[in-house]
Amino acid sequence: MNTKIRRLVLDVLKPHEPDAIVVATAIADHAGIDGVNVTLLETDREVQNLTLTIEGEAIDAAAIEETVNDLGGTVHSIDQVVCGDRTVERVKTPQDR
Amino acid sequence: MNTKIRRLVLDVLKPHEPDAIVVATAIADHAGIDGVNVTLLETDREVQNLTLTIEGEAIDAAAIEETVNDLGGTVHSIDQVVCGDRTVERVKTPQDR
Amino acid sequence: MNTKIRRLVLDVLKPHEPDAIVVATAIADHAGIDGVNVTLLETDREVQNLTLTIEGEAIDAAAIEETVNDLGGTVHSIDQVVCGDRTVERVKTPQDR
Amino acid sequence: MNTKIRRLVLDVLKPHEPDAIVVATAIADHAGIDGVNVTLLETDREVQNLTLTIEGEAIDAAAIEETVNDLGGTVHSIDQVVCGDRTVERVKTPQDR
Amino acid sequence: MNTKIRRLVLDVLKPHEPDAIVVATAIADHAGIDGVNVTLLETDREVQNLTLTIEGEAIDAAAIEETVNDLGGTVHSIDQVVCGDRTVERVKTPQDR
Amino acid sequence: MNTKIRRLVLDVLKPHEPDAIVVATAIADHAGIDGVNVTLLETDREVQNLTLTIEGEAIDAAAIEETVNDLGGTVHSIDQVVCGDRTVERVKTPQDR
Amino acid sequence: MNTKIRRLVLDVLKPHEPDAIVVATAIADHAGIDGVNVTLLETDREVQNLTLTIEGEAIDAAAIEETVNDLGGTVHSIDQVVCGDRTVERVKTPQDR
Repeated sequence: MNTKIRRLVLDVLKPHEPDAIVVATAIADHAGIDGVNVTLLETDREVQNLTLTIEGEAIDAAAIEETVNDLGGTVHSIDQVVCGDRTVERVKTPQDR
Repeated sequence: MNTKIRRLVLDVLKPHEPDAIVVATAIADHAGIDGVNVTLLETDREVQNLTLTIEGEAIDAAAIEETVNDLGGTVHSIDQVVCGDRTVERVKTPQDR
Repeated sequence: MNTKIRRLVLDVLKPHEPDAIVVATAIADHAGIDGVNVTLLETDREVQNLTLTIEGEAIDAAAIEETVNDLGGTVHSIDQVVCGDRTVERVKTPQDR
Repeated sequence: MNTKIRRLVLDVLKPHEPDAIVVATAIADHAGIDGVNVTLLETDREVQNLTLTIEGEAIDAAAIEETVNDLGGTVHSIDQVVCGDRTVERVKTPQDR
Repeated sequence: MNTKIRRLVLDVLKPHEPDAIVVATAIADHAGIDGVNVTLLETDREVQNLTLTIEGEAIDAAAIEETVNDLGGTVHSIDQVVCGDRTVERVKTPQDR
Repeated sequence: MNTKIRRLVLDVLKPHEPDAIVVATAIADHAGIDGVNVTLLETDREVQNLTLTIEGEAIDAAAIEETVNDLGGTVHSIDQVVCGDRTVERVKTPQDR
Repeated sequence: MNTKIRRLVLDVLKPHEPDAIVVATAIADHAGIDGVNVTLLETDREVQNLTLTIEGEAIDAAAIEETVNDLGGTVHSIDQVVCGDRTVERVKTPQDR
């Protein structure tokens, strides 16, 4: 059974510098990654709140978190993890509060 | 007639540790599973509320629940079950309260 | 003209046990069915409200209802029925109250 | 020019019996019809309000209405009619009140 | 450059009779038309408000309006016109009031 | 690098006459245009507010504006411009006020 | 690992002149770009707020910003950056505030 991570969605807090381009480029450089999407959720005077969507065949979550920390950021929460042979999308049901 | 489970959506409550990556990886390791999506619904000081979407050709629901329990979590509700030769999506109608 | 039932959407009330997996598996075992989707709409202390989406080439509605009753449930309403050579989707118009 | 009716959406009021399955099966039995979708909009103590989406190459609207009446129902309104060589969908514009 | 009309969306007011089927059939009979969709927007005691979506390779708008008038209706507004070699859909932008 | 205009969305104010059909036909007649969609946003006693979506391989914006003026209208705003080898759609992000 | 920028979404403030067409054309002229979408978000008396969606195989963000500045505008925020072998779309989760 394939337990590799195919998608990781992270909520990240980081200072204004370095900018989102540096973050995206640094993460895209990791092995096992097809692509990374860095989207700005909120900005205040000190901090930017980003959501990272990372996809690939074998994502190394610990290495990604290390890169985020190296750039001065912190992983605030792991919002979604997808493992296996194919990327399964979340199915919404009436129970989702 | 094929009565195998092709999709299972579970509402799970678990402590902060182990994290969602450990949960997703552990479940992806089960036989009969193509992939698993673990999405964070809510977090409070003690507990995380996750929604798991598990898809495959022959999901063993009892074994999945056992894995969740082994990781310190509980299955709060079975939100969706799909059985048969193909994955039938829920059709919404005006009657859905 | 093909009058076979291709899709049936049922609103079902059932006690907590047996669970939704038992219901889905039992219905998937009927002839003429490609697959069944059982989604939890609401739960209170005694009863679960499920919506069943059943699809196939020749669904036997009476047999399905019998199975629901055998499991302690009741069909609260028939929310959608699709008959014919192909599955026609409901077209919404401004008149739908 | 092909003036045949390819889709008919009818708002129908009918007593509880016969049920929606009987209505769907009876209409599917008409010539020129590929399929029929009967969806429950509302139910009160006496009457059910259904929306019927009927598709085919040459729908006989009068014959359909007759069948509805034979089953104790009435066509409350013709909500959509599509004629021609292909099924043209309604295009919504800001003017739709 | 192809200036032919490929789609016309008209807001039409008409008396209850003749019904929408007669309107759809009459318009579908025009040359240069692939299909027509007549959807009921509103009904009051005297008048029905319909939205007509007419598609083809070379729609004759004046002839269509004449047919509507012949059936006792009036074109209340031209809600959308599409001309050219292919059917261009409206792109919504934040400026649309 | 291809800097040609592939799509232009214009907010146009014009008197009631000439009607939207004349506007659409006149613009469709320009070189470099595949098609034009003219949709009515609002109407008041003197003026109509239209949104024009124009697509092609090499749209001449100045010539289009001239045609609008010739028909008694004014380009109120340029709501979207797309240039290049392929038509890039706008990506919405949480930052869009 | 491919760290090239495949998409850049920028929030830009600029004076009314030069117009959005000049901005789109100037950016489309950069190497490594397939296309650019410039959409008007808001206009007030002095300033226009645009959202730029730029896609290609190897976008030079610094050069783009320089062009925006040359045209009298400023990049107000980097709203999305996508790097890698393929364009990964942002996955929304319940955690997005």
